[in-house]
Amino acid sequence: MTPVEIIRKKRDGQKLSRHEMEFLIKGYVDGKIPDYQMSSFLMAVYFNKMDFDETTVFTDIMLNSGIIVDLSHVPGIKVDKHSTGGVGDKVSLILAPMVAACGVPVPMISGRGLGHTGGTLDKLESIPGFRTKLNLNEYKSVIKKTNLVMIGQTKEIAPADKKMYALRDVTGTVECIPLIAGSIMSKKLAEGIDALVLDIKTGRGAFMQSKENAIELAKTLIAIGNSFGKKTIGFLTDMSQPLGYAVGNWLEVVESVECMRGKDVPDLMEVTYLLSGAMVMLGGKAKSIEEGISKCKGTIKSGGAYKKFLKMVKRQGGDISFIKDLSKYPKSKFSVEVKSNSAGYVENIDALEVGFVGIMVGAGRMKVDDVIDMKSGILFHKKVCDKVSANETLAVVFADDKIKLDYAAQRLQASIKIGKNIPTQPPLIHASIDENGVREWK
Amino acid sequence: MTPVEIIRKKRDGQKLSRHEMEFLIKGYVDGKIPDYQMSSFLMAVYFNKMDFDETTVFTDIMLNSGIIVDLSHVPGIKVDKHSTGGVGDKVSLILAPMVAACGVPVPMISGRGLGHTGGTLDKLESIPGFRTKLNLNEYKSVIKKTNLVMIGQTKEIAPADKKMYALRDVTGTVECIPLIAGSIMSKKLAEGIDALVLDIKTGRGAFMQSKENAIELAKTLIAIGNSFGKKTIGFLTDMSQPLGYAVGNWLEVVESVECMRGKDVPDLMEVTYLLSGAMVMLGGKAKSIEEGISKCKGTIKSGGAYKKFLKMVKRQGGDISFIKDLSKYPKSKFSVEVKSNSAGYVENIDALEVGFVGIMVGAGRMKVDDVIDMKSGILFHKKVCDKVSANETLAVVFADDKIKLDYAAQRLQASIKIGKNIPTQPPLIHASIDENGVREWK
Repeated sequence: MTPVEIIRKKRDGQKLSRHEMEFLIKGYVDGKIPDYQMSSFLMAVYFNKMDFDETTVFTDIMLNSGIIVDLSHVPGIKVDKHSTGGVGDKVSLILAPMVAACGVPVPMISGRGLGHTGGTLDKLESIPGFRTKLNLNEYKSVIKKTNLVMIGQTKEIAPADKKMYALRDVTGTVECIPLIAGSIMSKKLAEGIDALVLDIKTGRGAFMQSKENAIELAKTLIAIGNSFGKKTIGFLTDMSQPLGYAVGNWLEVVESVECMRGKDVPDLMEVTYLLSGAMVMLGGKAKSIEEGISKCKGTIKSGGAYKKFLKMVKRQGGDISFIKDLSKYPKSKFSVEVKSNSAGYVENIDALEVGFVGIMVGAGRMKVDDVIDMKSGILFHKKVCDKVSANETLAVVFADDKIKLDYAAQRLQASIKIGKNIPTQPPLIHASIDENGVREWK
Repeated sequence: MTPVEIIRKKRDGQKLSRHEMEFLIKGYVDGKIPDYQMSSFLMAVYFNKMDFDETTVFTDIMLNSGIIVDLSHVPGIKVDKHSTGGVGDKVSLILAPMVAACGVPVPMISGRGLGHTGGTLDKLESIPGFRTKLNLNEYKSVIKKTNLVMIGQTKEIAPADKKMYALRDVTGTVECIPLIAGSIMSKKLAEGIDALVLDIKTGRGAFMQSKENAIELAKTLIAIGNSFGKKTIGFLTDMSQPLGYAVGNWLEVVESVECMRGKDVPDLMEVTYLLSGAMVMLGGKAKSIEEGISKCKGTIKSGGAYKKFLKMVKRQGGDISFIKDLSKYPKSKFSVEVKSNSAGYVENIDALEVGFVGIMVGAGRMKVDDVIDMKSGILFHKKVCDKVSANETLAVVFADDKIKLDYAAQRLQASIKIGKNIPTQPPLIHASIDENGVREWK
């Protein structure tokens, strides 16, 4: 067996055995198989896909390239949530403390923002002192004491995925459902979870813009999760406009903290309650999603979620004085208001464009080593269906660089469409998906 | 413009501009673009192909990555032949001296054998002292003095192709018509030729086993050649059984020399005369292929081709005493006769299998750094349609390693099929192909 034989087999549309995939992936991680053979293999997979068996084996090999964290010292059914990523998606920041406050342990290993989408790690790191790089002992200790921990992928977690993801990023092989599914699930299954809730985004601001692809990905992720004995369910949610009003790392922390303190941001909280309610149900602390939602709402009213968040921030090294007094945080040097050219209704806010505007002002990165300006970003004043008068402020953009800011504001202006008539509100939750299939969500 | 953008564009089936291809290929040759990006690009090309414009541009960039040899100091229309490779294909050794003896200069840059097929360079190097590694000044000098030169790709000739071919070989991206065509033509166009005759092999022992693929390749090569202003024509010839009776480097030199001295090996000489006749016509020394064939036959009768061969061998450092006295060459330590199990007719000799038998006994290589045993190989006594009695010798296999030899003989036995009835003789020349299309050859 040689690497070329395996590449050719996949290239010619044949199914690979576990033995062949192990030879290739282990050889790659060990440095015996070079990048250039793995990248041509990945491109062959891009074209010829992997079937479900192959994808499961692929996930298993990546998972077992590292440590599967043992969280048996933490009582309860451990549940995590994964989102395929969007713009303004700060759901994890609010959801995790709520679910933990309901008594369900939440061990969460998140990613950084790349391309037009944000990342939970970057948002958390905007909190002064917050450490996302815990070692596995610290990880185990924080979840034991707090019922909640939020970190980044450590070197022990799925190192095969880490090496292959970096290669995919530079070889045009990212957008491939079996590879995406294997990458996501190998990390999630390593966290020590018992169950998983998936937020599969669809629409302009999502990686899977089309509903069909998003559903295919969701089905694959759910099937893999269940085949590893982890109860996995998912929801197809809308990412045509940004979620909530804030886009940008610290701005999103502020919005999240305000929500935990009781502010209602309708679209953001609807998605957050749904996903957290499902987690509480899977965690055995509610009989239905509805009951889970109701319990989560209770943790906001009681202040339990906010307390849990403060506790977690403190345990992970964050300076909670910035959370308690949100105004203490440094401000961007400049801001520009984006105003409506005409009276009418907000017809559309292009989430993909908003993501790119965020990158322009330093809130995101195009390359892994780009440096983020945590303060920068966009605060919307209006969202889709809102009525606006001429010259009314639609959004404010914040940045330290005046020239980039002006360009960004122009681009943002172009991404917001004003119409004469009130548009149809886009559905926020498209469907729920589990091992039995896809169902409309009402 | 980034490499990933270009990879993604090809991956998504879009046409690449000259600017994009130059950025990628020049960047690769300069070491700015790594192997792993080029290999995923090549796999994307494998799936999405290149159209004719792209293939021409690709060829042009590879051609211009090195030197285009100026042979204006050599009078006459310079013509070369290229074969897509087969088993027992020693045509170049006989053809080049014949054509040169007809007054048409033949500047030939050949390749080594790889996989199941032999290579002209290896055959020539079986002649003691023969140097295939001439520098470009020597190359120009030998063709000026001899009207004939036969060397290997120098570092100045299409270095982009050299680097990319080595990568394709280990990344499963060899079998792709635009890449094959670009690779062949970038080298041929660099030789300093004015016209080119192509021998496109088809059948079990060819790289393009199917007629459809062989014709597609031929059409692509011919269109590229003509678009560069070099008159290019081709013939689709049979490679279902080996060509001639000898397979193995020195054994093939012996057969070639015997043919130059007047021996008739029907299938070998029919193909050789056809291709050489076409070359003589393109070289302006005959009005038709038929007249060219007749002139070439004359160079055998007169001894002119043989003399030309001796002159070339001598000029390139070869010891012609071994050519003059073929029996002087060292012999393999062992030989095994492969005999017929039954009486009847040879129905089939599987050329691909014969190629692999050749590799087993050391006549070919699977990896570029495998060492060749020049003496080893196979001498057939019978070919397809020949009548055989039970226990009659079908072939003799030669090698220095007795164990490998026995295995090889067994495998060879299995590759020769004996039937009760006389089979239909397979057509040797399937078709002629030029810029006007494909025509049956009678």
